[in-house]
Amino acid sequence: MLTREEVQHRQQQSLALYRQAGLAITPEEQQRIEIADFGLGQFEQTGLGVLIYVNTQRVCAKEIAMLPRQTCPEHWHPTIDGRPGKEETFRCRWGEVYIYIPGEATPARRANPPAGRAATYTVWHEIVLRPGEQYTLSPDTRHWFQAGDQGAVVSEFSTTSTDEADRFEDPEIARFTRIKD
Amino acid sequence: MLTREEVQHRQQQSLALYRQAGLAITPEEQQRIEIADFGLGQFEQTGLGVLIYVNTQRVCAKEIAMLPRQTCPEHWHPTIDGRPGKEETFRCRWGEVYIYIPGEATPARRANPPAGRAATYTVWHEIVLRPGEQYTLSPDTRHWFQAGDQGAVVSEFSTTSTDEADRFEDPEIARFTRIKD
Repeated sequence: MLTREEVQHRQQQSLALYRQAGLAITPEEQQRIEIADFGLGQFEQTGLGVLIYVNTQRVCAKEIAMLPRQTCPEHWHPTIDGRPGKEETFRCRWGEVYIYIPGEATPARRANPPAGRAATYTVWHEIVLRPGEQYTLSPDTRHWFQAGDQGAVVSEFSTTSTDEADRFEDPEIARFTRIKD
Repeated sequence: MLTREEVQHRQQQSLALYRQAGLAITPEEQQRIEIADFGLGQFEQTGLGVLIYVNTQRVCAKEIAMLPRQTCPEHWHPTIDGRPGKEETFRCRWGEVYIYIPGEATPARRANPPAGRAATYTVWHEIVLRPGEQYTLSPDTRHWFQAGDQGAVVSEFSTTSTDEADRFEDPEIARFTRIKD
């Protein structure tokens, strides 16, 4: 649960990250940066700032702002009734981001799950993205990611975003942030 | 027809535009910037620098670099055998770009077709995009666009790019650049 004031404060932080990455964002867009806390109420640990540029019946593009060491928790985009799940490409624009997917556990990996929630993380193969580097995830692939010590800005290019279909490993997670008026 | 040296020179120009826009591009990507002259051999008038970030069976994302007043000629993405044509969103990252689509002709429009080719242009309704602004085109919609006086960098988010299916108004156009060794 976030207050309106907290949402505005977090939007300003996202905006500062976008600016750091040299991205032009219109005033109208600044107002609609989504502050996602995944219902855990620990935004600095588990959360994202998300600006959706476009999300049609076919294509989606977003700009993700991450605070230093902030984590997007483990989830996947399921295939439903034969319709393939969301396919997504992450492209690092600024900072550094560590993505974890199924496969051999990376020794001495660069990120750990947020304190107290490690039991809800199950994949440990690391992909490191620096500015200009990107990675494409197939549907149905479990993944989580964390920003480096400076934070990160990550472009996401994908098929239609249907966040309500996302599946999370952590049962306490709710995809949609609740705002207290 | 372009020589290898011309291609390399144009790739450097595209790269300078991407840098101007603050975009991180890897050395591997720099080598594969596509220099599209649409077969007209007048690259500064009719042409694009195109870096494809990703192009799968479902989604495509590109970064387009345009020299000052350079034009992407009139074309459309047809629906074929019931499969909807390419849907695309253009987002201006740097500079200014003028897009022309069907509709009421805009008085005192900001761009004219390249000299000598006006007969191959038929749509005159103007959309102006400045940094942070974007426009989504439906399939089958004729369009052409031109950069402003400084040039432009434009992100394209779209369904799968099948350039070979593109239809051009100008019969002299060939979508694929021929390179002379």
